[in-house]
Amino acid sequence: MKDSAMYIPTYEDMLAAHDRIAPHIRRTPIRTSAYLNELIGAELFFKCENFQEPGAFKVRGASNAVFGLDEAQAAKGVATHSSGNHASCLSYAAMLRGIPCNVVMPRTAPQAKKDTVRRYGGKITECEPSTSSREETFARVQAETGGDFVHPYNDPRVIAGQGTCAKEFVEQTDGLDFALAPIGGGGMISGTCLTLSTLAPETRIIAAEPEQADDAYRSFKAGHIIADDAPKTIADGLLVPLKDLTWHFVSNHVSDILTASDPEIIDAMKLIWKHLRVVMEPSSAVPLATILKNPDAFKGKRVGIIITGGNVDLDRLPWTL
Amino acid sequence: MKDSAMYIPTYEDMLAAHDRIAPHIRRTPIRTSAYLNELIGAELFFKCENFQEPGAFKVRGASNAVFGLDEAQAAKGVATHSSGNHASCLSYAAMLRGIPCNVVMPRTAPQAKKDTVRRYGGKITECEPSTSSREETFARVQAETGGDFVHPYNDPRVIAGQGTCAKEFVEQTDGLDFALAPIGGGGMISGTCLTLSTLAPETRIIAAEPEQADDAYRSFKAGHIIADDAPKTIADGLLVPLKDLTWHFVSNHVSDILTASDPEIIDAMKLIWKHLRVVMEPSSAVPLATILKNPDAFKGKRVGIIITGGNVDLDRLPWTL
Repeated sequence: MKDSAMYIPTYEDMLAAHDRIAPHIRRTPIRTSAYLNELIGAELFFKCENFQEPGAFKVRGASNAVFGLDEAQAAKGVATHSSGNHASCLSYAAMLRGIPCNVVMPRTAPQAKKDTVRRYGGKITECEPSTSSREETFARVQAETGGDFVHPYNDPRVIAGQGTCAKEFVEQTDGLDFALAPIGGGGMISGTCLTLSTLAPETRIIAAEPEQADDAYRSFKAGHIIADDAPKTIADGLLVPLKDLTWHFVSNHVSDILTASDPEIIDAMKLIWKHLRVVMEPSSAVPLATILKNPDAFKGKRVGIIITGGNVDLDRLPWTL
Repeated sequence: MKDSAMYIPTYEDMLAAHDRIAPHIRRTPIRTSAYLNELIGAELFFKCENFQEPGAFKVRGASNAVFGLDEAQAAKGVATHSSGNHASCLSYAAMLRGIPCNVVMPRTAPQAKKDTVRRYGGKITECEPSTSSREETFARVQAETGGDFVHPYNDPRVIAGQGTCAKEFVEQTDGLDFALAPIGGGGMISGTCLTLSTLAPETRIIAAEPEQADDAYRSFKAGHIIADDAPKTIADGLLVPLKDLTWHFVSNHVSDILTASDPEIIDAMKLIWKHLRVVMEPSSAVPLATILKNPDAFKGKRVGIIITGGNVDLDRLPWTL
């Protein structure tokens, strides 16, 4: 949809994004735990994007897209297809600007996700849970509304927005040896690469991925995008594949991709809940899971970890199932 | 044990406490939620004492006691009886200073509580789960070790330490109409009274208590201390009675005591987990539960709420039982 004219966002785009979205997002705090530091033998800094009002870093990219629209386009609003945090964050940003947001969502999506989008004023059009139905339905909705398509990650405005998180992270810490974030479609990792490759090129960027959805890992090793067949992991925010824009950043700037199994992810999630005392999603626990699995790589280092989101079903926590 | 010579801590004691403990505690952040603000029709500020390293505000009073000891007493260490956050926070503070901490705890206390005290280097002496056994055992331990008794709340050093939380709260917000905290023995409420009665006398202080352990509420109405027989509530940090020092502050400076039922406390706890995305104890949810029950009292107001602690058994969350 924008693939044909790939524009690579720049460091200046990220700076402009931060100026644009600063009034609409939170400068999220850093949490630390002496207990976890001792356990790993490293200094860990957790940036709490789960503390954004709609509960995920995706409000950064979504706000950058929404508040960057000219008045004519803004009147027609924005549109996307997503059943996750992008849908609620785009609805939230559109609500803040007072413009329409249309979301195409499979009718099988969890009721709680639909409720959140509607709470923020997003209009949901349901489709069947298939790629063809989603694409047909989305094309129709976009034609009817003229809403600007904001892709969940493969959009330069979105990547520039996500990059603002790493800028704050650098400002809030005194230099990092490593920066880790989970990888699904690669929006946050790409934004992190965009920012750190200019602002802190000495910081090594590590993407963390569930073993059971390791398409980015395999793509990274192969040197080209490989899609997963039917990934299935507790880290349900990380099921989508890389696209051309995010592959550009991953292939050029990521130092390594580490993976962890679902049981390891659940253990790490519980450790964070217990010792950092923050509510976060399974996806956000993947970085700590990979650190616990590869402790020697991080010994004595300053390690930044982005807690990407905090929207989780409290009635179905993975360790109580 | 110090009851015979009751010293009422002063505002200056609180200021000295803050200087003394500042290097050893966290200046905890404030969390807000646009969703909860809209739900209540008020501006809510949550001070996250659950983010203290040992997970509770009690590290303030414990640190003030521990770091205020002269060298001779420090060599003999501190001692207390508690099966809750005070035991772990006192052990933690003693560990930071490198002095002994002896804790008398019923042998029936949860293993997780014992593990936490031991992780911080506290030495546990077990007693039978009765008042007489606890008192006998504690007297013996204190005689043997010479450890300075630090009461969980009825100690001027402890109350002055807890008062440092309200000082930060005032500095971090732009004036509050109300300050709410849960009440058990009354340590945090007393510290809040101590500080706000000088620093922000216009702020009304509300204590929040479980209906099923409402001795402070009944004492407040009666004008003298009434103890509970056998309180039983999900808010297990709030089972202890007021004592002379805390009664002094409660009877002189608290505007009102509001109560909430256990189901209301659990609903409020889940709301906080979901929308603030912080892990906190049932006890810390009592203030929001009372606000939800008395919304008109808080409409349009600026309301500060102290989230007192975050040590909870993740395998036994109240809404999953």
